[in-house]
Amino acid sequence: MAAEKQVSCGLDFCSVPDLSNCLMTATSSRYDFICIPLVHPKFKREFVDPELKKRPGPFTRSDMILCSSDWNNLVIGKLSPYIDVDCTNPISRKNNEETLNQELALATHLGLPAITFKLTRNMNQNINFARIIYNKSTTPCAFQVWVQVPMENPAKQANTYRSDKGDDAVESTWEWWNSLRLVCDFHGKLGVALIVSHDIPSAEEINRWLGEPLKCLILPTTLFITNKKGYPVLSKAHQMLLKKFSPLRVQMILSGSNRHQDITFYHNYLDHLAKTYQSNGPVERFARGYEDYLQCPLQPLMDNLESQTYEIFEKDPFKYNQYQTAIYQGILDKIPEAEKDTKTLVIMVVGAGRGPLVRASLNAAEKAQRKVKVYAVEKNPNAILTLQALEKEIWGDKVTVVSSDMREWVAPEKADILVSELLGSFGDNELSPECLDGVQKFLSDDGISIPCSYTSYISPVQSSKLYNEVRQCKEKDKHPLAHFETPYVVHLQNKYDIAQPQPLFTFVHPNKEPFIDNNRYEVKKFVAEQNSVLHGFSGYFEAILYKDATISIEPNTHSPGMVSWFPIFFPIKEAVLLNAGDVVEAHFWRRCTLKNVWYEWCVSKPAPCSIHNPNGRSYTIGL
Amino acid sequence: MAAEKQVSCGLDFCSVPDLSNCLMTATSSRYDFICIPLVHPKFKREFVDPELKKRPGPFTRSDMILCSSDWNNLVIGKLSPYIDVDCTNPISRKNNEETLNQELALATHLGLPAITFKLTRNMNQNINFARIIYNKSTTPCAFQVWVQVPMENPAKQANTYRSDKGDDAVESTWEWWNSLRLVCDFHGKLGVALIVSHDIPSAEEINRWLGEPLKCLILPTTLFITNKKGYPVLSKAHQMLLKKFSPLRVQMILSGSNRHQDITFYHNYLDHLAKTYQSNGPVERFARGYEDYLQCPLQPLMDNLESQTYEIFEKDPFKYNQYQTAIYQGILDKIPEAEKDTKTLVIMVVGAGRGPLVRASLNAAEKAQRKVKVYAVEKNPNAILTLQALEKEIWGDKVTVVSSDMREWVAPEKADILVSELLGSFGDNELSPECLDGVQKFLSDDGISIPCSYTSYISPVQSSKLYNEVRQCKEKDKHPLAHFETPYVVHLQNKYDIAQPQPLFTFVHPNKEPFIDNNRYEVKKFVAEQNSVLHGFSGYFEAILYKDATISIEPNTHSPGMVSWFPIFFPIKEAVLLNAGDVVEAHFWRRCTLKNVWYEWCVSKPAPCSIHNPNGRSYTIGL
Repeated sequence: MAAEKQVSCGLDFCSVPDLSNCLMTATSSRYDFICIPLVHPKFKREFVDPELKKRPGPFTRSDMILCSSDWNNLVIGKLSPYIDVDCTNPISRKNNEETLNQELALATHLGLPAITFKLTRNMNQNINFARIIYNKSTTPCAFQVWVQVPMENPAKQANTYRSDKGDDAVESTWEWWNSLRLVCDFHGKLGVALIVSHDIPSAEEINRWLGEPLKCLILPTTLFITNKKGYPVLSKAHQMLLKKFSPLRVQMILSGSNRHQDITFYHNYLDHLAKTYQSNGPVERFARGYEDYLQCPLQPLMDNLESQTYEIFEKDPFKYNQYQTAIYQGILDKIPEAEKDTKTLVIMVVGAGRGPLVRASLNAAEKAQRKVKVYAVEKNPNAILTLQALEKEIWGDKVTVVSSDMREWVAPEKADILVSELLGSFGDNELSPECLDGVQKFLSDDGISIPCSYTSYISPVQSSKLYNEVRQCKEKDKHPLAHFETPYVVHLQNKYDIAQPQPLFTFVHPNKEPFIDNNRYEVKKFVAEQNSVLHGFSGYFEAILYKDATISIEPNTHSPGMVSWFPIFFPIKEAVLLNAGDVVEAHFWRRCTLKNVWYEWCVSKPAPCSIHNPNGRSYTIGL
Repeated sequence: MAAEKQVSCGLDFCSVPDLSNCLMTATSSRYDFICIPLVHPKFKREFVDPELKKRPGPFTRSDMILCSSDWNNLVIGKLSPYIDVDCTNPISRKNNEETLNQELALATHLGLPAITFKLTRNMNQNINFARIIYNKSTTPCAFQVWVQVPMENPAKQANTYRSDKGDDAVESTWEWWNSLRLVCDFHGKLGVALIVSHDIPSAEEINRWLGEPLKCLILPTTLFITNKKGYPVLSKAHQMLLKKFSPLRVQMILSGSNRHQDITFYHNYLDHLAKTYQSNGPVERFARGYEDYLQCPLQPLMDNLESQTYEIFEKDPFKYNQYQTAIYQGILDKIPEAEKDTKTLVIMVVGAGRGPLVRASLNAAEKAQRKVKVYAVEKNPNAILTLQALEKEIWGDKVTVVSSDMREWVAPEKADILVSELLGSFGDNELSPECLDGVQKFLSDDGISIPCSYTSYISPVQSSKLYNEVRQCKEKDKHPLAHFETPYVVHLQNKYDIAQPQPLFTFVHPNKEPFIDNNRYEVKKFVAEQNSVLHGFSGYFEAILYKDATISIEPNTHSPGMVSWFPIFFPIKEAVLLNAGDVVEAHFWRRCTLKNVWYEWCVSKPAPCSIHNPNGRSYTIGL
């Protein structure tokens, strides 16, 4: 288990008469960094008028007050709040631009890790500001930009006193942020510093922030209440809020004057909450460090898995239990009590790997008190070594190890039960349908396939983080859009589900259709509950192993503790702005040739977008 | 003058019992190609049902009927009209998909230059079809796809009989095409074959087609009326329509049964019209072959122009006349009649090139009967050779040739008139402001600059052609978006003006501001008259040389016959869908450092889009 991490918490100062002293106060109270105004917040400089320009004296403190490593690690610089580079008066605009440039240059000079400023209106009225920030962000070695966004539009509180205006009339502050980052082309240096409000917005609005690059939460001291022992604590509602953001590992900034005996108390409380909320379930432990990390899906048909990969998957606490239950049920259905001593059941495990399904089969048979003969078919010669050792040392003649690709094997007899685990994150994406169609000739007419069916699911997702990650996956020798036309396996964390998942493609085994066709085409419609940005589709699967025994990574039915699959993510190359109520119409194709299988996808509503991965030009799964 | 080109005209056949015969008929009647059904239009094949699949016999004629070069050049294949790959019944869909694939494969096998099919509904109901066509288009060596679009929605004619429904209720067929090409990602293989209707839509609707990749016009024989001599002719309205499309050099296809004595008559008439409409003004003659061809703007400050370039620009019939008029007027204003014998005027031509402005100055002085002394300042040592030869052989001591960069020259005296031609397609984009600001120290306090002011203009443009051209300008070692962040000089033809141009940046010379600042920032709002697609902004300029003497390439005030400048085009990286009435808000910045000048631009409405060319990362103009 990874060590528990303390919360990273900063302290905000509205003015800083003595910087060394401030920093000392903060660090001695256990805070990790400080936020300070870059320049005295009331010191307006003049850059145009020649007389006023002559005003003597430095415009802010010297960089000698702190050592470089302190500037580089402990100080977040706040831009002067009065700067307005979008005012219409050209002289005033020029002055404001120079002021802003001066502060940005200072932040670069000091080597600050980040600068921050507060949004007070929609960026549509702030395009020049957005441009300057974006320009700065695209320079090499630029600092991060933490955009402070109030969780609630201040106009909303003003409105609650007026009965004639509904909440709907007030723009969500998310729109402010959204227009800024659109103008800044989703630049990775930009993050959100969310100012937590006293009234907490709707759950939907909070969830939408989960799809944004949230860097920190700003907590005003006025949010805290005093508990019986005199310590500052948060209300239940605010605690729940922090819990919701906890998986994103956001930092905290405490702002406002100290209202308790010791400023340390706030830190201790936030640290306590962070530790409490840190989830330590099997999935979280397993996935730690892989949050929102893009992986290319495995191609076990084309490539042999490595020992370590087998080891990871064999550890799944839930999956093989379910398999064992399914096989047990299958065995009982195949051999009634009366025939238990006369009949021996043939089980074929196709793709046996290092043997977990063989073990599950033997366990199930033992539990059912039935006789079985197990064939363990595996194409990976390295895994065969393990199987043969197990055969010799433990299993004996109950198990026959077959070193062959299941598609080429000629079975000596027919199976009663065919067991396989060829499923990928999207169900059929590791070509389970093609493999099982190939081997079902060895299954007796009334034989059982475990799994007997599986269904993929998709849902529309907003995630600036993933969108940006995908954009950076560009490879030189591939099609220029290849990185947008490839699905990724990813432990989705920093994302907002625009709508609930819907089932997409289903495959049933054995496939008794007269003409087997594993091509698929489905159209799904989703309704956006609120304004949001579509960045792609998350994909899941649900499989019926046999009767009640199922496994699922679809969030609403996720198998408890099952770690073997992360979701899959289908990106789209251009983010689509959605308004509340918009219908997202998604088209997904599964396309097959004799050599390859691939997906194509597109969005046709609210507006038509182009087809991704035509002809599998960017990504195919090899047979 | 380039030779007059015959119209390229094809003949459509609804069924083809004897292909060789058809082709013979067409070519002997002077038609250039034929359109034929790939397969008998009523022969539906079966691919799923095993019994029906066995139906014997070939599905269409043999490829031996024609030789390859005829197939490759003279035959356009029509897909079977009944194919519906978007029907919901999976078996029927499968059958239709196989039918379509069979016909597409046949077209590839025959090596046809293009296939064609007719749109009958919005592609939103045809996404699977769009995907298959797109997939085919992205394969190497694919044929062109001519998408037949009726000019008027057939539902509209049905509606005219019902008074309760306005025209607005009927979707424009442009929407059908638009949704198809969006799904197909604006693929260059897709073009429009517009079926000309009896009733002609509004001028706006027609203009919108000018922004599309129009390959041909399909003219049903029923459109033709019979003139007094018994020949087929078009109505005035249809003639005007053809005239409008003439600059795009579209091909024609005659469809429907022959209603006149000889099918040749139609061709002869269309050929006659095409010749009549071929414009042969100086601009057209000059620009022939450059239509919609993207050029990088000149950088005469950094690079020396070549002899040929000078020669081209010196030929401009209008420009130097205007300059001469302006200088003439300036001379008269500077030396009143009374002083004509005593005063000698100093004229400095900065950037004299091979001398056309020196010549204009001397001509103006002669016409005004005033004495002048002309300094011809030029930095290009090769052009200096020409100037020195002219000085020695023709001009004598009236002209002093100065071999120097105007910005470094130390003038021996002050000028009364400063003449320059440093303007680019966008006015200031060849850094006229910076150059003239630098030399105005040599201008006497009441001196005149010719030009004395200039203003750039922008207007929002739809042009699939240019959008596609820009996309293909990708260069390996540049920023991946560089080709979208560079303005291009281009003779715009295949485009639709979404709204009228508006003035953007103005520069005045001499610049008497106490602090010269050539940075600019302007926001312009345009209203889209109808649904359209924004692909970028066309840019122009208008300059006041002196008093009434102006030059302009802004379409509404374009100087007659002036050929020296094509418009400039600022692309945007993602096409923006516009609805009628949408406001397009465009932001343009001109940014200057001591070394470079560049533009940045973005669209903030109807939805915010990212800033183009931040920090001049993709394109700057060197000082």
